[in-house]
Amino acid sequence: MNFSITPPDPKLRPALQAKIDLLTKPKGSLGMLEDLALQVGLIQQTLTPQLRHPQNIVFAADHGIVEEGVSVAPKEVTWQQVLHFTHPQGTGGVNFLCRQHGFTLKVVDAGVDHSFPKDRGIIDLKVRRGTSNFLHGPAMTKAEMEQCLAGGARVVRQCAEEGSNVLSFGEMGIGNTSASSLWMHYFTGIPLSECVGAGSGLDIKGILHKFDVLSRAKDNYRGDGSPRDLIRWFGGFEMVMAVGAMLQAAERKMVILVDGFIMTSCMLAASKLCPAVLDYAVFGHCGDESGHRKLLDALGAKPLLSLGLRLGEGTGAICAYPILDSAIRMINEMDTFSEAAITLYF
Amino acid sequence: MNFSITPPDPKLRPALQAKIDLLTKPKGSLGMLEDLALQVGLIQQTLTPQLRHPQNIVFAADHGIVEEGVSVAPKEVTWQQVLHFTHPQGTGGVNFLCRQHGFTLKVVDAGVDHSFPKDRGIIDLKVRRGTSNFLHGPAMTKAEMEQCLAGGARVVRQCAEEGSNVLSFGEMGIGNTSASSLWMHYFTGIPLSECVGAGSGLDIKGILHKFDVLSRAKDNYRGDGSPRDLIRWFGGFEMVMAVGAMLQAAERKMVILVDGFIMTSCMLAASKLCPAVLDYAVFGHCGDESGHRKLLDALGAKPLLSLGLRLGEGTGAICAYPILDSAIRMINEMDTFSEAAITLYF
Repeated sequence: MNFSITPPDPKLRPALQAKIDLLTKPKGSLGMLEDLALQVGLIQQTLTPQLRHPQNIVFAADHGIVEEGVSVAPKEVTWQQVLHFTHPQGTGGVNFLCRQHGFTLKVVDAGVDHSFPKDRGIIDLKVRRGTSNFLHGPAMTKAEMEQCLAGGARVVRQCAEEGSNVLSFGEMGIGNTSASSLWMHYFTGIPLSECVGAGSGLDIKGILHKFDVLSRAKDNYRGDGSPRDLIRWFGGFEMVMAVGAMLQAAERKMVILVDGFIMTSCMLAASKLCPAVLDYAVFGHCGDESGHRKLLDALGAKPLLSLGLRLGEGTGAICAYPILDSAIRMINEMDTFSEAAITLYF
Repeated sequence: MNFSITPPDPKLRPALQAKIDLLTKPKGSLGMLEDLALQVGLIQQTLTPQLRHPQNIVFAADHGIVEEGVSVAPKEVTWQQVLHFTHPQGTGGVNFLCRQHGFTLKVVDAGVDHSFPKDRGIIDLKVRRGTSNFLHGPAMTKAEMEQCLAGGARVVRQCAEEGSNVLSFGEMGIGNTSASSLWMHYFTGIPLSECVGAGSGLDIKGILHKFDVLSRAKDNYRGDGSPRDLIRWFGGFEMVMAVGAMLQAAERKMVILVDGFIMTSCMLAASKLCPAVLDYAVFGHCGDESGHRKLLDALGAKPLLSLGLRLGEGTGAICAYPILDSAIRMINEMDTFSEAAITLYF
């Protein structure tokens, strides 16, 4: 599947900047709120940007690499958490944040090793019950990768039809920090040792073992080195679906709130397919996972928050939403020095 | 005026930590949300903390030191902005943030050089029309300092009677970064040159002039070096009122959201009178003003945000409120591993 993403037309930039500069505050004194207002104004091509119907989409899948002991959490936590997020009582980590900030939560089964009941509203895009173990070969076939890209895109088109113009993406997939570390390594050139971290709680010994497994997976890689090949060789179904979702969101000129290490890796992979996707990205959070800061730096990203979150599920992105909302309110609700009859002093 | 502040009773800490650790997430994976939930649980002495009726109190006053040319903004911006914040249309910087996060805004005239109309709801605690120029002597008398401490405390008691248990404080006072720099210097021992910054927009030449003025003010200091003396010698009426307000809020066991450089200086000054006030402080934002990071470090504070804001008015504190709210929702709305039937894996 191919995506057609164009950067926002920069012609509106001077008018947007002028509007922001004349609001009743010292120029630049609202910092990143001003940057965000400019970015969203350009994306939406308007001096009065709006955020409509935010949704958080959690893609979930299992990873074959988990059989190598790279994660402290057992594989069944993936399906358990999917049931948890979709429980009517909504008592998971992502649920209270969605309620707080008015997000609709969509949970997508991209390839979890479990049969879910039909009454939970889980969107069934299951490719198969987990990827193959990439220590011994590609995690998925080319056809499966295309299926994932198309599936992620389809969920985003659904959100667009529902009236959304801002989306965050999250994931649930025990083992997916391993896949993300390899994407980060290949797509940034940063040494693999700097891309591997504790995931959901490995100790030093566990991290060394994970690094050893990933090093051997790298030695065993027999692909052509292209972005698409690396994406399918190491990726998880939930991760490739997120890549497709991000690309579709950018094509539709939606604002993309980027969560933690995994979703930043997905944005990185997406940018290797269509660099302009980055113009639509708002990086929500710099997490504790080793390498996330370096990954953000490699993307030139300035994350809004750094709260030490490492939960995934979109939690870091959703926590950052009120700041994005503040930026939009700033440009729409503040008046200018002339309107307010305040002395212009800069 | 004296305040009686006791640290929160630590006996509840193990029970609070146990509750947080058993929520359905890897231990510690919600980072600073977990720290905040623990802090507020201890302040309120409950496993189910609540935030009630947040209010932002902006103290405003003028500074005699402005006649030395230490600020890029003319003095009249103080009264103009006070009128602006209290305009029925609410189009100032602090107004949209108060609306967004459900804060009531109180604006206090602590000593502005202007006669305000009675119909704006401005709380009249005017000491006089601006402090004396501290280049030549103390900014205020001892009696005026006591009047400020008592005035700030009175506004906070009013908020408590209205049902609030979380307050943020902000300021409007052209010249108050100069006063704050001197408090910071005296109360932390950090060299004055590292405590002086651009304020609302000085260039390098302006900063050097400001440093020169403050150095001379320091040379001219003839007080006894005690916290109370330094507070009244260099402080602004709005700043000393904020000190009184913070101390009263801690005495009443309220959560104090601390804004930018000025309010952090006020918290520092408050801590010199009653060190336990720091247990009630949540630092909202690390701003761009030179020295703010060092000041926060000196206090051992971990600010929630770093968005490059330098507006004051409480904006950085209010922007951080949804994160505090997230922490409270986390501890009340998430369930535990046993409740959720998820494998406990750590």
